[in-house]
Amino acid sequence: MTPTRLALIGFGTVGQGFAEILAERGERLATRHGLAPTIVAISDFHRGSVYRERGFDPKELLGAADDLERLEADAKGWDALTTIRRSEADAVAELSFTDLTTGEPALTHVREALARGMDVVTTNKGPIALHFAELRALAAEHGAGIGVEGTVMSGTPTLALGAGLLASAGVTRIQGILNGTTNYILTRMEAGLDFASALAEAQREGYAEADPSGDVDGIDAAGKVVILANLVMDAPIGMADVERRGIREVSAADVAAAAEAGERWKLIGSVERAPEGGVRAAVRPQRVPLSHPLAGIGGATNACTFTTDLLGDVTLVGPGAGRLATGYALVEDLIALRGRR
Amino acid sequence: MTPTRLALIGFGTVGQGFAEILAERGERLATRHGLAPTIVAISDFHRGSVYRERGFDPKELLGAADDLERLEADAKGWDALTTIRRSEADAVAELSFTDLTTGEPALTHVREALARGMDVVTTNKGPIALHFAELRALAAEHGAGIGVEGTVMSGTPTLALGAGLLASAGVTRIQGILNGTTNYILTRMEAGLDFASALAEAQREGYAEADPSGDVDGIDAAGKVVILANLVMDAPIGMADVERRGIREVSAADVAAAAEAGERWKLIGSVERAPEGGVRAAVRPQRVPLSHPLAGIGGATNACTFTTDLLGDVTLVGPGAGRLATGYALVEDLIALRGRR
Repeated sequence: MTPTRLALIGFGTVGQGFAEILAERGERLATRHGLAPTIVAISDFHRGSVYRERGFDPKELLGAADDLERLEADAKGWDALTTIRRSEADAVAELSFTDLTTGEPALTHVREALARGMDVVTTNKGPIALHFAELRALAAEHGAGIGVEGTVMSGTPTLALGAGLLASAGVTRIQGILNGTTNYILTRMEAGLDFASALAEAQREGYAEADPSGDVDGIDAAGKVVILANLVMDAPIGMADVERRGIREVSAADVAAAAEAGERWKLIGSVERAPEGGVRAAVRPQRVPLSHPLAGIGGATNACTFTTDLLGDVTLVGPGAGRLATGYALVEDLIALRGRR
Repeated sequence: MTPTRLALIGFGTVGQGFAEILAERGERLATRHGLAPTIVAISDFHRGSVYRERGFDPKELLGAADDLERLEADAKGWDALTTIRRSEADAVAELSFTDLTTGEPALTHVREALARGMDVVTTNKGPIALHFAELRALAAEHGAGIGVEGTVMSGTPTLALGAGLLASAGVTRIQGILNGTTNYILTRMEAGLDFASALAEAQREGYAEADPSGDVDGIDAAGKVVILANLVMDAPIGMADVERRGIREVSAADVAAAAEAGERWKLIGSVERAPEGGVRAAVRPQRVPLSHPLAGIGGATNACTFTTDLLGDVTLVGPGAGRLATGYALVEDLIALRGRR
């Protein structure tokens, strides 16, 4: 078992969830999965930055999460790039904030780490949706690995299923409920709320952000469709290739009319092989019959149906967000890159 | 890429589905998954037995499936054990008929192959449900691998998900609709048929056998529960440890009463960690609310929900039977043992 020295760029919800998993299950990861990760550096814009050559106990990081520089360290105050360059880590977990327009600053972090031959694991959709082909080539060039399970459906192993286990079954179409916030809002509208009230409730419950456009306009789901298309179907599409409509246009009357017909509105992200070659990708609200494999997915749950040549439809249902669920995505990626199943 | 010489014990639906996949996708399996299997021998009780040192084209096997000994071969008429001993195969696909009481004759075949250091892939529940611990130890002793994906939910990668991708998430409970025949019957009973009529229809449609007890009494599902318990939860239980009730006791009135209450009857196989240590395993008809993750699974589809510490519930839905779907299970196992993902 080779120890893995890890640098974390960002120590918000996901990074803390990951540290909690290491604190509680580190021994099992080592004995059963051959993975012994030690966090040697964290750089967080708000919480401070620390580097310690011999590593940190995950528990002490969690105890000092609001001000990391309280901890005894060999260096403090390094920015993200300095941390990547000087921490001598084997792998970098890129967990800074997501930007689906430029991919920055995460894109620069990921490029820097891969160019140095460091493995990268990330839950950050930005750089992956915008520049996956380039990053995959960069990783191959430098003998590095890149794990992105957490960019779609958090730690629910959607990419490992679609791009791994089902690869040889011939995936011809993917349809998913890939955004928990909009699914929560639509589920609440079925209970009688109008869009504005359901959105306000989602914001109170912490499912939606103050500016909800990333979710309700389908941008987040479109990013996931691009990632699924690239990884599972080898289709090199970008954000602009996704026909995109959000759920603002779905009215309480629409939801009621669907219910009367025994149907439901769902925001479905999809990508499928086109008869003319290439793929067609879309995110749009769809009225589906209750027999549809995604019709029963309620609340903040996510789901993804892979239509395959050999198995027909295979559907995976699981959490799309959450501290431990997303932190677990990093565990899966690290096991795949540096441990054993 | 190392070529894989394969011996098939049994050439019924599953073996022919597998050969069809090799015929259509052999090149992709080689280039993308590093798997180049050549069928060098088949021994089938009804269809005859052939061995050819340089191997057979899958298409010629399919063309002669009713009488294999029509083919030009280096040897004919070998029984299963002779085939295993003399074919010099790297891997054996055990596809003879399933017996959940003794596991024979498949058990003897699997033991013989593993003891010779040959990899074994099988869709046969018998030996795996009855003697998994012994067979795993035998495989380890002789440096052989054993792949059993097709014993549960055909090629839907249920074991790869539960015992592989979710292993480090801490699986504490498994609940599944693991038998398509009974689910088909219950679904048809919801449409108004009584048990006897629904069973007769299932038999006409080819979902149920002339003696339906393996399905309707829950024996098939119990075998799958035992396999899930052993592989996913490391719980060394046997068939006798599964509390088992079938669906004969579910009446048309029961189904109607559930529907009126917005609920459904499902035959659910389950295994969960018991507070007193060990696990509790059962197969029994259960009345579940429509919000239950397995309530929406209709017809002959199968589904399995893994309850985990880190991800909560993760559900996989897919085919539970079928020529190509079950043949694909062997492809998955061979990729895992002898190719690359």
